[in-house]
Amino acid sequence: MNSFAPPAPFDLTGYLDNHRRVIDQALEKIIISHFAETRLCHAMKYSLMASGKRLRPILCMAAAETVGEINPQVIAAACAIEMIHTYSLIHDDLPAMDNDALRRGKPTCHVQFDEATAVLAGDALLTFAFEIFASASVSPENAGIMLQVIRNVSTAAGHKGMIEGQMQDIAAEGIDMTLDALKTMHALKTGALIEASVASGALLAGGSESEIRQLEIYARDIGLAFQVVDDILNVEGDAGEMGKATGTDASRGKSTYPALLGLSQSKQFAAELINNALHALDIFGIKSTSLKALANYVIERKR
Amino acid sequence: MNSFAPPAPFDLTGYLDNHRRVIDQALEKIIISHFAETRLCHAMKYSLMASGKRLRPILCMAAAETVGEINPQVIAAACAIEMIHTYSLIHDDLPAMDNDALRRGKPTCHVQFDEATAVLAGDALLTFAFEIFASASVSPENAGIMLQVIRNVSTAAGHKGMIEGQMQDIAAEGIDMTLDALKTMHALKTGALIEASVASGALLAGGSESEIRQLEIYARDIGLAFQVVDDILNVEGDAGEMGKATGTDASRGKSTYPALLGLSQSKQFAAELINNALHALDIFGIKSTSLKALANYVIERKR
Repeated sequence: MNSFAPPAPFDLTGYLDNHRRVIDQALEKIIISHFAETRLCHAMKYSLMASGKRLRPILCMAAAETVGEINPQVIAAACAIEMIHTYSLIHDDLPAMDNDALRRGKPTCHVQFDEATAVLAGDALLTFAFEIFASASVSPENAGIMLQVIRNVSTAAGHKGMIEGQMQDIAAEGIDMTLDALKTMHALKTGALIEASVASGALLAGGSESEIRQLEIYARDIGLAFQVVDDILNVEGDAGEMGKATGTDASRGKSTYPALLGLSQSKQFAAELINNALHALDIFGIKSTSLKALANYVIERKR
Repeated sequence: MNSFAPPAPFDLTGYLDNHRRVIDQALEKIIISHFAETRLCHAMKYSLMASGKRLRPILCMAAAETVGEINPQVIAAACAIEMIHTYSLIHDDLPAMDNDALRRGKPTCHVQFDEATAVLAGDALLTFAFEIFASASVSPENAGIMLQVIRNVSTAAGHKGMIEGQMQDIAAEGIDMTLDALKTMHALKTGALIEASVASGALLAGGSESEIRQLEIYARDIGLAFQVVDDILNVEGDAGEMGKATGTDASRGKSTYPALLGLSQSKQFAAELINNALHALDIFGIKSTSLKALANYVIERKR
């Protein structure tokens, strides 16, 4: 096939299944070699292996494919990022925060175990993520790149990123946010780690600075679109299909895109974001087929 | 004078004050350049700058002095380790865990702020610690050593170390533990991070494998002694001087060394541990003067 031919139809379902399987198997392997038969490890495993979408690890791998190829360091980073995402869900679900009883179709960690165990299982998954980053075997000349990945991810996941986003989310409950405040909150709470996922995969696969800049634009836009779609699904989605309660945003008085813009304008906003994201991939041509398909998945998903 | 006494009068108070000032200033500098005027950062700063003993950072620096000299990477690691220690205190104090109201002479983080903020401030300090490790400027050939430090510290602080120790501590409340179970719990809960503190300082100052092995023996023994002394202080200490409530172990039915061994045998056990720790430093001769003095501090401290 020459480079001007239209890309072949892309089997997104197959792609997601394959990549999800790679991540699940890598996580299983890590669990077997690192977890003991303790209550703490059981709780960590319970939440980590609770059939998540694995969106962040898949984005990490797809970014690697776009600039080079998936290697063991990319897989390690993808697993570590999923651990960070899982810890954030465990802590967000705690009684002192969102007080959610259901997550990914199962009782939340503090319901299944207890609150102390849930706090500690979250702490342990966050800590373990950095052990996994730092344990990935890298050549001496690539150690600096892994440090850069750790720096990116910890910045994105910390008080300048995801955790500040969660603070803003909690503070905003029952308060009318402006559209800008809502966007900022989501850029921090969800966007930052999604950006870091994409950047990590690209960095570890040898991506150049300019390639990574484009990928970060892509990630920023699909990250925000992901959140807009989340809000839409909270209004329109099916609780059974999503594995968590719906309609909760409205009953809690949360500011959401549907509440601020209306449903139809929210859908249009998400579509515009996806369009921008796709544009940012232009420099990669056919190599970004999987990232393009993932952008469409973000907006078309039902859970 | 026997071989383990400090060869010259050693001004421990001056040493501790100097090194504590170095750490406090380094932490202040980090706070100025990384923290925003947010509730989250205020809570992080509140707990981090609450006049702690800075034992772990000082041990990290003293280990560096023992094998080489203190450099900016050692200071960065010492600060990061203090962040990890502080996060663990914030989470341990939570209502779902020890439910403590007083820490370092001040209201605990969840009392001063609120529970959600305390969970997130702890999460953020833990995450930020890894940003600090990964941001320390290292030469390309030393990047691998920093990865090793991150690996050591995350392993020590995670589900194979400190967090598992906290789980065992919670599980043991109201249950009579054997002496061995108590030692294991403390080796995990306190010992692991103290060992990693010492190993980090030595690694980043160019220590050899055999030097680090000896330092780890030293750290393991003073770590356990530290905990034995903690238990003794909980019985005998002065709440005002310690900045936290005393007598709490007995009222909670916690297994402690004084409860299992009696006060006088507990003191003897601590003294033996310190003796072993001092022996492990023999290979360093006069270069380990500060570590020797610190071992004596651990057993003689009043808070």
